[in-house]
Amino acid sequence: MTAKNLSAVYLSTPTVLRYFAGLRYLATERPAAVVIPRSGEVAFFGPVIEKEHLSYQTKIIAKAYHYPDYPGETHPMKMFASWLGELGLAGKKIGVDNPSFYSSPWGYKGPKLSDLVPDTTFLPIGEELEGMRLIKSENELACIRETVRWGHRAHELLQKYLAPGQYDFEAATRASLEASISMKKELGPDFKGTTPSPLTAYAGIRGQVGANSAYPHSVSIERPVEKGDVIGSGAGADIDGYHSEFERNLFMGKPDDKVRRYHRIALEMQQAAFEALKPGAKCSDADRASYGVARDNGFAEYVRHHTGHGMGLEEHEPPFLDLGDDTIIRPNMVLSCEPGIYVPGLGGFRHSDTIIMNEDSAEWVNTYPRDTDSLTVEC
Amino acid sequence: MTAKNLSAVYLSTPTVLRYFAGLRYLATERPAAVVIPRSGEVAFFGPVIEKEHLSYQTKIIAKAYHYPDYPGETHPMKMFASWLGELGLAGKKIGVDNPSFYSSPWGYKGPKLSDLVPDTTFLPIGEELEGMRLIKSENELACIRETVRWGHRAHELLQKYLAPGQYDFEAATRASLEASISMKKELGPDFKGTTPSPLTAYAGIRGQVGANSAYPHSVSIERPVEKGDVIGSGAGADIDGYHSEFERNLFMGKPDDKVRRYHRIALEMQQAAFEALKPGAKCSDADRASYGVARDNGFAEYVRHHTGHGMGLEEHEPPFLDLGDDTIIRPNMVLSCEPGIYVPGLGGFRHSDTIIMNEDSAEWVNTYPRDTDSLTVEC
Repeated sequence: MTAKNLSAVYLSTPTVLRYFAGLRYLATERPAAVVIPRSGEVAFFGPVIEKEHLSYQTKIIAKAYHYPDYPGETHPMKMFASWLGELGLAGKKIGVDNPSFYSSPWGYKGPKLSDLVPDTTFLPIGEELEGMRLIKSENELACIRETVRWGHRAHELLQKYLAPGQYDFEAATRASLEASISMKKELGPDFKGTTPSPLTAYAGIRGQVGANSAYPHSVSIERPVEKGDVIGSGAGADIDGYHSEFERNLFMGKPDDKVRRYHRIALEMQQAAFEALKPGAKCSDADRASYGVARDNGFAEYVRHHTGHGMGLEEHEPPFLDLGDDTIIRPNMVLSCEPGIYVPGLGGFRHSDTIIMNEDSAEWVNTYPRDTDSLTVEC
Repeated sequence: MTAKNLSAVYLSTPTVLRYFAGLRYLATERPAAVVIPRSGEVAFFGPVIEKEHLSYQTKIIAKAYHYPDYPGETHPMKMFASWLGELGLAGKKIGVDNPSFYSSPWGYKGPKLSDLVPDTTFLPIGEELEGMRLIKSENELACIRETVRWGHRAHELLQKYLAPGQYDFEAATRASLEASISMKKELGPDFKGTTPSPLTAYAGIRGQVGANSAYPHSVSIERPVEKGDVIGSGAGADIDGYHSEFERNLFMGKPDDKVRRYHRIALEMQQAAFEALKPGAKCSDADRASYGVARDNGFAEYVRHHTGHGMGLEEHEPPFLDLGDDTIIRPNMVLSCEPGIYVPGLGGFRHSDTIIMNEDSAEWVNTYPRDTDSLTVEC
């Protein structure tokens, strides 16, 4: 704020509210904002539905202003304009994460705050805020490590419960429930989830079964799991809203030589990408390394996506391990490493692991087994 | 398109892609669009990760253009500009749902398509598209009715499994899993979910237990359910991406007279709102009716939100049953009716039901019991 001579920042994007104010704001049709002044008390503008919930979630809000509901007899954004005046911020220079002042797919429409508060400068600072989130604090890294630990627990249970004749979500839900109950018991009463999903630890397959595992964004399944299926699984947990990535192939019964070869190449691609992840290297280096392995083995046609991405409060965040992203890798970045090949009619071959960049090296956080035999479900 | 003299529409918002093209697009950092010309073939612009998945999801795409990944050595939006030229649309007038041409919280940044295609007019048509979604077709109503049926099934199981000493999500997950397996078995192999959630039917409580049920947007729980708790539950299902609303109070053991009175007033508020829902009436009428009941009983201070909202592909959509929304209610609108009162320290009292507006009347789709005794869990 000092560098840009801002009197305050006005924040209204859910992830930004979580990062800077500890708020988990369910962004419905009802607009909300947190206003952080350069000096003075932090204020909340939002619907009265959040009134009691607010102090339950965060202690940093000193002043809360509430409107009855959206659209209301007076549009909430008009009230925000008036409250900004009460805070002495009209006529000042204010940073904003979202130049629309609030967005939601749930039907919100309204005037721009900048049209309601004359002679006030609103400066977009979304990129600067995103830049702050690139490099994780020790607390953030601790949360991410903890999600990995619970992801492993859930995935061990998934692997244990998975059997032919079931739909993919049967074993996945049993595993997620059992791991989530363990989280509540081991982490104690202060531990709480941050999303509407009831399960804080989860393992899942979401339709990546057999030939459908060649659709990396598959979400559903038509038939029970069968012997011979190549499966794409994943697991994780919610620790204070942070994410990690952890995906594996599972094989229903002993895989044949062709499947073993595809799997081996996917692992070699991942290893090559990992070795390119060094503080000071470029993000594109890792993508070039994994792509090279696919190409040299004649599998370039089966590549469907880049090698990885940052993560944190969002599942995907910049930077991207992509041929077109020359961002320099720095300590305390957290990156997924997940190149893959997708063979139409047969299946997708990909592991995804969370990599924490330390001072001099990359740390492969997921210690879960990666070899074909360890990931074979007997049947 | 004819009325506005558009040569095509360029659509990039997930819900709009679902509505107009049958696509379930996972809006990551990777931009995508569907281009529908006034005459000619429908085109898809998007990442190669969706290549095979596309024809699995929808049959209306005749031409698909793919880029390797985001940000790529050539930015995808530059390719979109070139593909628009190949379609013969440069220099024409094109409607757009999102004037940013693509948005995602997962790190997408890029130039505006309008800056890359000279002499082409891009006309925002978001409000017109939203207007089309206000009035549901018979097919959409059939989907919504089917979600209600499965929501009831899941909630019956929730009520059966809920017991003191459990976390709220234990009974909820068991109920959701059992109902989802029934869906797969009864609806057959063609039935598929449309979201990354593995469960197509769900019942949940998401932390609305005891005093925390007074937070309508609570998402987590610290302790197991206990005898005496007031609970806020909900249930639903995913049928082709459509939603309904169905929420109930549950009472752990026989409620005392105070709790019974709050519950009775919430039901009277809902009944009053329902009676105001008539084709030709205003949305605000229903909110005024339910609020009047709260006020006349001395409970206005406990109201925290308006009476309801539209729904469809999104959980909340316009119009809003709100004092400030004078939209005229029309046949084939679908509305939630869910006024409530929230008593700090004790709990929240609210049922939410899905109302379909028929030609001359409002149809209360949820036939699930509403009375206090039917919603009491013996313990």
